[in-house]
Parts: sequence; structure tokens; C-alpha cells
Amino acid sequence: MVKLVALYKKPEDVEAFLKHYREVHTPLVKKTPGLERLEVSMIKADAFGGEPPYFMMAEMYYRDWETFNAAMKSEENKAAGKDLMSFAKGLVTLLVAEVEE
Amino acid sequence: MVKLVALYKKPEDVEAFLKHYREVHTPLVKKTPGLERLEVSMIKADAFGGEPPYFMMAEMYYRDWETFNAAMKSEENKAAGKDLMSFAKGLVTLLVAEVEE
Repeated sequence: MVKLVALYKKPEDVEAFLKHYREVHTPLVKKTPGLERLEVSMIKADAFGGEPPYFMMAEMYYRDWETFNAAMKSEENKAAGKDLMSFAKGLVTLLVAEVEE
Repeated sequence: MVKLVALYKKPEDVEAFLKHYREVHTPLVKKTPGLERLEVSMIKADAFGGEPPYFMMAEMYYRDWETFNAAMKSEENKAAGKDLMSFAKGLVTLLVAEVEE
């Protein structure tokens, strides 16, 4: 499987961020063609101590590279990307990963 | 679920790193009591371009906080942690996350 991994730094207004993420962004992400699964996790601690470098992680799973590439080119993904930049610019690191096995 | 998320920067000797990770480290991690699932992913790209900040990610899933905390205190986990520091010191970021839903 291929997944898009979004790592978010802690925003200034956590409540507003989460509200937008859940009410506006997530529905857009879920419209992306071929999305198999969305896993969202709240980062609670850095195991080595101190403030964790990230606040939240979202992983969007696609069956294979073909499906992933098609999804990334879709209008639905463009809308999700545009929305992302509207509330998470400067906060988000977006990585493309290949899941082993 | 609760998961330990290990984000690894790219090592100097990728081949040696992966050999150690797969042949020595992974068996130790899998001995950790209560580990439900280990998901390893290779980071292939930074969606915004440039070199991705990480090379590999490993996620270790536990059923709940009680199981996770017990696992972290275990002798097996101590062995895995000691091994981690032997080959990944300076490379690894280790986060504790709570999976939504």
C-alpha cells in the first residue's frame, strides 16, 4: 500500500484548527478517489522527553501506486490540497510512503 | 489504540542500517508484550518537493494505554530500546500517539 502521511505542528489556536480539520478538511479528504483508509492520531508525547515536534498525524492509505497517483491528480484532491493550504500552511509536512508488506 | 511512532532520518550507510533494522531490531520489537501490529514504511518523497526529512517510519500498535504502558516497562522493550540506541542514536524521533477511532 501507499500512504500520504501528514505531520502537523501544533497550531496557535488548537480548537479552531481541529474544528476545521474535522468539519471541513476530513470530508474533502474522504472524497479522494481510491482512499482506502484515513487514520488520524494525536501525538501525546516525545518518548525522549520535551515537547513533541508534531501535534497530529494523518495517514491516507491507497491500494497501490497507480491508485495513489490517480488520486493525487484528481479534482477532489486538488480541493483537499487547497483547503490544506488555507488552514495548515507552515504547519504541515506531507510525505509519500510505501508500506512494507 | 496507542502507537509508538519511530521516524528515522536517512543513515549514512543505508544498507547496513536496513540489515540491522530487519535482522536484529525487528525481532526484538516483535517480542514486546502486547504488540498488536508493526507497520514499517519507506518514505519515498516529500509532497512539497525536496529531500524528505525522514527516510523510514515504523509504527508499533498497542490495544490501549494500559497495554502500552506495561509494554514500555517490560524487559523486552528495554532490550529493543538499547538496540535502538546502538544503531539509530541521532537518527530517530520517537513519538507516542493515540489513534482516533
